Amino acid sequence: MRATIVTVGDEILIGQIVDTNSSFIAKSLDKIGIGVHEMLSITDDRKHILNTLSSLQDKVDVVIVTGGLGPTKDDITKKTFCDYFEDTLVVDEKVLAHVTQLIEGFFKRPITQINKDQALVPSRCEVLFNQVGTAPGMWMEKGNTVFVSLPGVPFEMKHLIENAVIPTLISRFDRPYIVHKTILTYGVGESLLAERIESWEDELPEYIKLAYLPSPGRVRLRLSARGTDENQLHEGIREQVEKLQLIISDCIVGYDDGETLEVVLGKLLAAKKITLATAESCTGGKIASLITSVPGSSAYFKGSVVSYATEVKETILGISPEVIREHSVVSAAVAEAMASQVQKILNTDYAIATTGNAGPDKGESEAEVGTVFIGIATPDGVFSEEFNFGQPREKVIDRAVIKGLEIIYKEITKNL
Amino acid sequence: MRATIVTVGDEILIGQIVDTNSSFIAKSLDKIGIGVHEMLSITDDRKHILNTLSSLQDKVDVVIVTGGLGPTKDDITKKTFCDYFEDTLVVDEKVLAHVTQLIEGFFKRPITQINKDQALVPSRCEVLFNQVGTAPGMWMEKGNTVFVSLPGVPFEMKHLIENAVIPTLISRFDRPYIVHKTILTYGVGESLLAERIESWEDELPEYIKLAYLPSPGRVRLRLSARGTDENQLHEGIREQVEKLQLIISDCIVGYDDGETLEVVLGKLLAAKKITLATAESCTGGKIASLITSVPGSSAYFKGSVVSYATEVKETILGISPEVIREHSVVSAAVAEAMASQVQKILNTDYAIATTGNAGPDKGESEAEVGTVFIGIATPDGVFSEEFNFGQPREKVIDRAVIKGLEIIYKEITKNL
Repeated sequence: MRATIVTVGDEILIGQIVDTNSSFIAKSLDKIGIGVHEMLSITDDRKHILNTLSSLQDKVDVVIVTGGLGPTKDDITKKTFCDYFEDTLVVDEKVLAHVTQLIEGFFKRPITQINKDQALVPSRCEVLFNQVGTAPGMWMEKGNTVFVSLPGVPFEMKHLIENAVIPTLISRFDRPYIVHKTILTYGVGESLLAERIESWEDELPEYIKLAYLPSPGRVRLRLSARGTDENQLHEGIREQVEKLQLIISDCIVGYDDGETLEVVLGKLLAAKKITLATAESCTGGKIASLITSVPGSSAYFKGSVVSYATEVKETILGISPEVIREHSVVSAAVAEAMASQVQKILNTDYAIATTGNAGPDKGESEAEVGTVFIGIATPDGVFSEEFNFGQPREKVIDRAVIKGLEIIYKEITKNL
Repeated sequence: MRATIVTVGDEILIGQIVDTNSSFIAKSLDKIGIGVHEMLSITDDRKHILNTLSSLQDKVDVVIVTGGLGPTKDDITKKTFCDYFEDTLVVDEKVLAHVTQLIEGFFKRPITQINKDQALVPSRCEVLFNQVGTAPGMWMEKGNTVFVSLPGVPFEMKHLIENAVIPTLISRFDRPYIVHKTILTYGVGESLLAERIESWEDELPEYIKLAYLPSPGRVRLRLSARGTDENQLHEGIREQVEKLQLIISDCIVGYDDGETLEVVLGKLLAAKKITLATAESCTGGKIASLITSVPGSSAYFKGSVVSYATEVKETILGISPEVIREHSVVSAAVAEAMASQVQKILNTDYAIATTGNAGPDKGESEAEVGTVFIGIATPDGVFSEEFNFGQPREKVIDRAVIKGLEIIYKEITKNL
């Protein structure tokens, strides 16, 4: 089975926004054995949309279109989509009730005609109900091709892909079995990791493919097995993961595709009833923000002191001005004092602290741009590590956040 | 003039990486008045590449292809590109000298045949010399179309676009003028905004186009004027912006394309020497993280107390347990107490506080999932507003963050 992903929107074609939807959809299709043949981004132009749809009909099995379903005048995808199937727009009562509830119930505003029009759908379409927004998804078929239209707002698109499009594709089409396994690694770069697992990779059987998915500070390895015997695929993947564990056990932190370090860490903290706090300077609350992005984090995360100004390190965290004067605000001594103090004040088992210079200029301290000290307080003491994460600012902050989570994760697992 | 951007690479079509190159190229072309008609991402497949090139010839003026110029087996773009023009590959001596210098001089490795092959180019092509990498760019023409092939490594692609492709296009082609203006609005949803400016939008002259670019809590409006008289375009845009200001002055916060609310707020705080702190519960440090993502934020942002656990609201912020017991932790009283206390403790002019239930389950409080109270402390007092941001968790947090910044921005500008 082959698919084409079409993104509609002038804002993409003038480079104002980067299309991340197509990548998400491609990944989701790939996981269920549907290969993406092409991705297209086209203008908010009726003829352009019609020509594109007709050029894809009978050429691929599935066409997924995102964007242009909003309520404003430049959003013409729905009307055009409907015209392509020579259908007419009708009100979907369930969608109308939902839109009314959203506008009047949540937003406390009188509903307008523009809002109500969000509930219009082609009369023959299968509505993909959008619980998290006002624009419904639409599933239509013409010739040998399924056409799906989805809103372009990323979280609405994701919701519909995961809860409507993928389950429907799975239930209606025969596809080869495909089994994926993701191995989440931290702390080793892509090329070094590739070298360590080279001989294992060379000996992978033909039906198992390996992909490297690197992002700052971490690499996900994805094994994909395709074939007709599902049990054999699972068994083959299991064998390979076991072999891999012998080689890189020191940097594997998880196996779930959606697992990120904050999720893995959260599970560990919840299971072991360990509490955590952070004291953040250069990371400005981003470690706390990432930890609390995980549902249920209130079970193990107590809070953070974002001591961005030096005086806050003194007043709230109670770090002595002498320590700061003697060592400078970006120093191992201050990172360790911040970690110890926030651990004490918030009464937690562990604490992470950051102090550094994210740039672009040198701040109050004399530390080079990119310098970050990460302090870790444990039940047995405190330590710190020094890093230089280079630049730009954004990268320094992100790498300090990930490194902080990585160090605390390793420290806690080591002590278990 | 119209262009199509083509990205070659299986890694994009399986969703492994997001294509950011096309967006950069589109923005660069748009600035010089070349409209991008389509973006395509295609597989590393000879026939797919050949079919794509031939389908674009004489349809658009410029085709820019990125990717597939690397040294490994799956990089077939150069050979295929050459075949499309029925040309043969020859060694470019200048490129060979550069590659040799990079490998032997910089990386200190013996040069291999694979490295040397990077200096092969179609005999009739115009070489776009790549100072920052080993793969040269190539400029060819066929029929009425210019075909440019560039490496896919983002910084190499950017270097060649800025230093070779754009200057060459400017020098060889007459193009229309194009003038853009972005208006950043906050606090009014897309559909409500559309209604308020409907009659203005209907009366826009033909040569000025309007686009809505919504993201949670904010909408950017983009006006684009095209024509032959640059002064007239600027004048036309200026007139329309003036008319628009009369209609929605209450929700316009800025005019720069790259401007976000945290940047606009930061400029205001820095200019007026106003200091700010946050006390965050449900937003978990994300307001602080956003504020400190702006370079120079240490001039006005002192810090944050992320009081995720109820006890932290009591111990560090000093909120009385009675207030929490009486009103519950998700309440106007607690939001206001948090704001006042963090303003006092961190000694700032203003403070933002959040307490709410981001879900997915009800937490310690009885508040509905999605309920958020935002407290604002000013030099003159304290107030709060209640919201329900629905679900999922991610959206509740993001909307609370944006709403917090929006309220404080309006409050400060009101008091000026």
